[in-house]
Amino acid sequence: MEVEQVLHMNGGYGRTSYSNNSLLQRAVISWVKPIFDASIEKLCCANLPAECLRIADLGCSSGPNTLLVVSNVIDMIQNTCQKLNHRPPSLQVFLNDLPQNDFNTVFKSLPSFYNKLEERKWSEPCFIAGMPGSFYGRLFPKNSINFFHSSYSLQWISKVPKGLVTKGGLNEGNICTAKTSPPSVFNEYFEQFKNDFTVFLRSRAEELVPQGRMVLTIRGSINSHEPLSILEFLGLKINDMVLEGLIEKQNLDYFNIPYFEPTMEELMDLIETEGSLGCMTIKFLNMIGTLL
Amino acid sequence: MEVEQVLHMNGGYGRTSYSNNSLLQRAVISWVKPIFDASIEKLCCANLPAECLRIADLGCSSGPNTLLVVSNVIDMIQNTCQKLNHRPPSLQVFLNDLPQNDFNTVFKSLPSFYNKLEERKWSEPCFIAGMPGSFYGRLFPKNSINFFHSSYSLQWISKVPKGLVTKGGLNEGNICTAKTSPPSVFNEYFEQFKNDFTVFLRSRAEELVPQGRMVLTIRGSINSHEPLSILEFLGLKINDMVLEGLIEKQNLDYFNIPYFEPTMEELMDLIETEGSLGCMTIKFLNMIGTLL
Repeated sequence: MEVEQVLHMNGGYGRTSYSNNSLLQRAVISWVKPIFDASIEKLCCANLPAECLRIADLGCSSGPNTLLVVSNVIDMIQNTCQKLNHRPPSLQVFLNDLPQNDFNTVFKSLPSFYNKLEERKWSEPCFIAGMPGSFYGRLFPKNSINFFHSSYSLQWISKVPKGLVTKGGLNEGNICTAKTSPPSVFNEYFEQFKNDFTVFLRSRAEELVPQGRMVLTIRGSINSHEPLSILEFLGLKINDMVLEGLIEKQNLDYFNIPYFEPTMEELMDLIETEGSLGCMTIKFLNMIGTLL
Repeated sequence: MEVEQVLHMNGGYGRTSYSNNSLLQRAVISWVKPIFDASIEKLCCANLPAECLRIADLGCSSGPNTLLVVSNVIDMIQNTCQKLNHRPPSLQVFLNDLPQNDFNTVFKSLPSFYNKLEERKWSEPCFIAGMPGSFYGRLFPKNSINFFHSSYSLQWISKVPKGLVTKGGLNEGNICTAKTSPPSVFNEYFEQFKNDFTVFLRSRAEELVPQGRMVLTIRGSINSHEPLSILEFLGLKINDMVLEGLIEKQNLDYFNIPYFEPTMEELMDLIETEGSLGCMTIKFLNMIGTLL
């Protein structure tokens, strides 16, 4: 079965739900807000459509962060239009995630979200739709989206690299790139990321209107081939369970997570090589100091 | 709480799900297909957009009927384009229902639906989105939809008529219009339907592109104020439960379903009075003979 038919954050509001375990992702959204705001402001100044501004949040998941992004967009458009003395456009917002995402929970919260918009004096219609599907492919008609946003999603690649599936024991004892992984594992993961990210850029380039904008926040590595601390740690714990006989060794050896954290240089190279999009700004944000 | 925050068909695939109890609605879609097909054909001949055709199914619910409508649209566009020797446009389809609808079940079935499209040689992109919200209000940007469809949904009105809520015992012993309902109950229901249907037409008129089309199938009455057999029967059964002491009388007296079946003449009058849309065809389809 394809990864996109099974991969999703835990839905609902329970103890193990993404909704209850996404404070880090919320902090990232707040931290990136100045860049996000500046981009929306430039979009409004450059080419505000008279009728309808179309926005897509890629990898929206479900929980308090999903509508926080929409809320931020609306606030910023409202502020900018007020400054420019423009009437704000109507909005069509597409919340995108894989088809297994818990869209029901998001949709059920929309009536109260629309009520809040009224309280905040947003005067124009705002239509929030769900767009299920993988962003590693086309999601929208050509030239139809003015602003793309994606936060903490693009490090999830479309599938476990092919080489790791065919050669089961290649990443023995690990579930992702780790200190004890051989270089071939790093290469396999990087090749998959390269393919996926290129498809992502090409797809968005077709969908973005001229002068449209995109803000992507990706969890990355400081150095190329730097092991991923959290997933490496999780791999070690699963390894302990193998040693205790709770999990079969083969199951760990064949289990790899479709996840890769690129460096800033790797990203820049891929954007330049793909070439469809002008990259205005690329920033490295070190959250460790802020979060500790 | 607003009706639109609670009203929905039963989700999932269980015994009492809409998915497992919507054969009648499926039969209606098949029965209306010639009208539906003719409308799509005229749409394609009149004004096929070069890039993307936008379609909305209002009151899509979840189950086998939801994607059947999309499937029918695609087949008909494919056939017509073949006949006209046109390249088919890409499609953006909006599945609409109230926010409590089980969109998750529909979305999970999309990957296999897209695979089937490939098998059927549909060559252009087809993007299926969910649009939660009440169709008794705006759902889409101005001039953005080429084709609206709605089957067996518009007899569900936006709320229980106000008079029945304030005057609790007005429709004593019934849950909708019934033979034993006083004329004031019929009037209250008709007034609510009139308001709702007018808002519906006005909203769609704003959203429809010039030369766009709409096919609406509504469960109606042969004569004005004709009692609704199924809901009347259900009301009688609940009344029996009141007499057996299983339900409190007051609960039945205050319970009314937001449902009204108009006559063809009532519909025609409302469309003409609202005046935004040219009504090309209105047909009365008697299913009783076919279904028995």
